[in-house]
Amino acid sequence: MNRVAAVDVGGTTVKAAVYEPVGDGLKRVAELRRPTARGADPGSAVADQAAAMITELGATAGPIAKAGVVVPGIVHNGLAKFSANLGFRDVPMADLLAERLDLPVAFGHDVTAGGVAEHRLGAARGFGDIAFVPVGTGIAASLLLAGRPYRADGRAGELGHVDIGHDDACGCGATGCLEAVASASAIARRFTERSGIPVDGAREVLARQGDPDADAVIAEAVDALAAALRLLATLLAPEVVVFGGGLFEAPGLLERIDDKTQLTFQRKPQLRRAELGDEAGCLGAGLLALGATR
Amino acid sequence: MNRVAAVDVGGTTVKAAVYEPVGDGLKRVAELRRPTARGADPGSAVADQAAAMITELGATAGPIAKAGVVVPGIVHNGLAKFSANLGFRDVPMADLLAERLDLPVAFGHDVTAGGVAEHRLGAARGFGDIAFVPVGTGIAASLLLAGRPYRADGRAGELGHVDIGHDDACGCGATGCLEAVASASAIARRFTERSGIPVDGAREVLARQGDPDADAVIAEAVDALAAALRLLATLLAPEVVVFGGGLFEAPGLLERIDDKTQLTFQRKPQLRRAELGDEAGCLGAGLLALGATR
Repeated sequence: MNRVAAVDVGGTTVKAAVYEPVGDGLKRVAELRRPTARGADPGSAVADQAAAMITELGATAGPIAKAGVVVPGIVHNGLAKFSANLGFRDVPMADLLAERLDLPVAFGHDVTAGGVAEHRLGAARGFGDIAFVPVGTGIAASLLLAGRPYRADGRAGELGHVDIGHDDACGCGATGCLEAVASASAIARRFTERSGIPVDGAREVLARQGDPDADAVIAEAVDALAAALRLLATLLAPEVVVFGGGLFEAPGLLERIDDKTQLTFQRKPQLRRAELGDEAGCLGAGLLALGATR
Repeated sequence: MNRVAAVDVGGTTVKAAVYEPVGDGLKRVAELRRPTARGADPGSAVADQAAAMITELGATAGPIAKAGVVVPGIVHNGLAKFSANLGFRDVPMADLLAERLDLPVAFGHDVTAGGVAEHRLGAARGFGDIAFVPVGTGIAASLLLAGRPYRADGRAGELGHVDIGHDDACGCGATGCLEAVASASAIARRFTERSGIPVDGAREVLARQGDPDADAVIAEAVDALAAALRLLATLLAPEVVVFGGGLFEAPGLLERIDDKTQLTFQRKPQLRRAELGDEAGCLGAGLLALGATR
C-alpha cells in the first residue's frame, strides 16, 4: 500500500486528497474540502483539522502510508513561521501534526509545493530553471533553480513586492510593488475604484474588454507583469515561467505580457499557463508525502 | 605534488598564479601578469597565452598537477559563448586548452569563480545564500544559492541590467539599468559630463566629497545600488551581499547603501566588502582546478 494523503491549507478552504502513485504521476482516488478551521490557537486548530481530514480519508479510501501537509506564509524547518492570513507565528506545525497522526507526515510550503507539482506533473515538465507564479490575492513565485526549490529559509520568491516603479501603496508598507497593481485582488479593486462598479474578481474585469476603465486597469497590470518578467529574466534567466490563477484563463493575456516584455540580451523565457489549476498545492503535498521534495 | 595553476583572463590583463592547497586555503607560491593577447582568432590567442603562462609558471615554480582558467562573458559547457570585450563567440575554450596542455584543465567563468572564492576563502565564508557583486566597468552578480553557483547556462546574475527606474540609456539598449548610473565607469563618466572635469576612475570622484557634482553623482549611484539590493532581498533573500571593486574602499559607502535600502518584511542581508580584491577570480580558478567547483 503506497497511497498518500495530501492536505493543502488555504486561507478559506482546506483541500485534501488521497493519491496513488502511478508511473511518474499521481492518481487521485479520494478528495475532501472543508472551510479552514479557525481558533484562539490557530496552529492547533489547523493541525487538528488536517489530522481529522487525513483520518477521515483513511476511513473511506483505505490504508494510507504517508501524508503531506502544506500551508501558506513563511515556512522553514518544520515551523509555520508566519501567515498573516491564518494567524500563524512560529507554529511548530511538523510536531503538531506528528503528535496527532500515526503515520509519517511531511510538512511544507504551499506555493513551493505547487511549483514542484507543476515541474513534475504540469506545465514545467522537462525544464530545469523555473519560476511558478500564482497570481491571486497576492503574487509570489516558487523558484526551482537547477531543478530544486530555492527557499532561502522560506524568504525567497516575493515577486509581488519587487518595485516596478508606480506610486501606489502596497499592504507591505512600500510603494511600487507588483502585486499592488497586478494581483487578481488589485485588478478588481482598481477597476471598482475607477468605475464605481463592483465586481466579483479580476476575471469579471477581463471579461469587460472594450470598457475604458477595464482596459486601463488591465493594461497597467500587463505592463507590471512584463516588468517583473524582465526582472526574472535578467537576474535568474529561467527557461520557463508558469503563471497560475484564474486570471490566465482569459484568452491572450500571456501573449500580451510576452509582447510587453522588453528584453535586450536576456534569455527569453517561455511563458506557460499552469496546468494543474487549484490542485497544484495538493498534488505538491502528495509529492512531499512521497519524499519527493523537502 | 598537488600544486595548481590558475589563470584569470581579463579585458586588459591576464593574471596567473600557482597555488598550493594548505588546510582549507590556497597559498600563492608564484604569480605572473601579462597584457591580454589579441588576435584575428581571439579564442586561439587567449588559449595560446594561457597555456604559455601555465607552462612558464611550471618551469619556475616546479611541477603543477592541474590548472584552472576563467574568462568573462557568457560561459557554458566548456564554451566561451560570448564576450564583447574579448571578441569571443562560441569559442570551444575547454577543448583549445586541453589541446595545448599536458595536464587536466578546468574551464569556467570569472565572476562565478570570484564568488566561489569569496565563499570559500573570503567575505562570504560560512554563508549559504550569497550574492557577490563586483562593481567595475559593468555590474554582474555571482549568485551562490544553497551553497552552489546558480548559473542558468551562464545567463544568470545580470544585476547590472535590472531596471531601477531612471531614464538614462544603457549600452545594452534599454533604459533604467543599474550599471548605467552605478558602475565605476558610469560614476566617472557622469561626473565628467556634469562638471567638465576629467577623472581617472570612480575613486577619484569619491575622493571629491563636498563637490556638488561629485556628491550628486554618488548619491544617485547609492540610490541605484540600494534599489538593486532591495530587489535581491525581495526575490532571493541572500544572507549576505559581498560588494567588490575599488569603489568600496571609500569609507562609509556600504553604510550609505545600507541606510538607503528600504525593506519592509524582507530579510535584511548583511553587506560586506569583498576580501580577496582583484585576486578573487584567480583564486576561484585555483579552486576550479582543484575540482572544488564546476
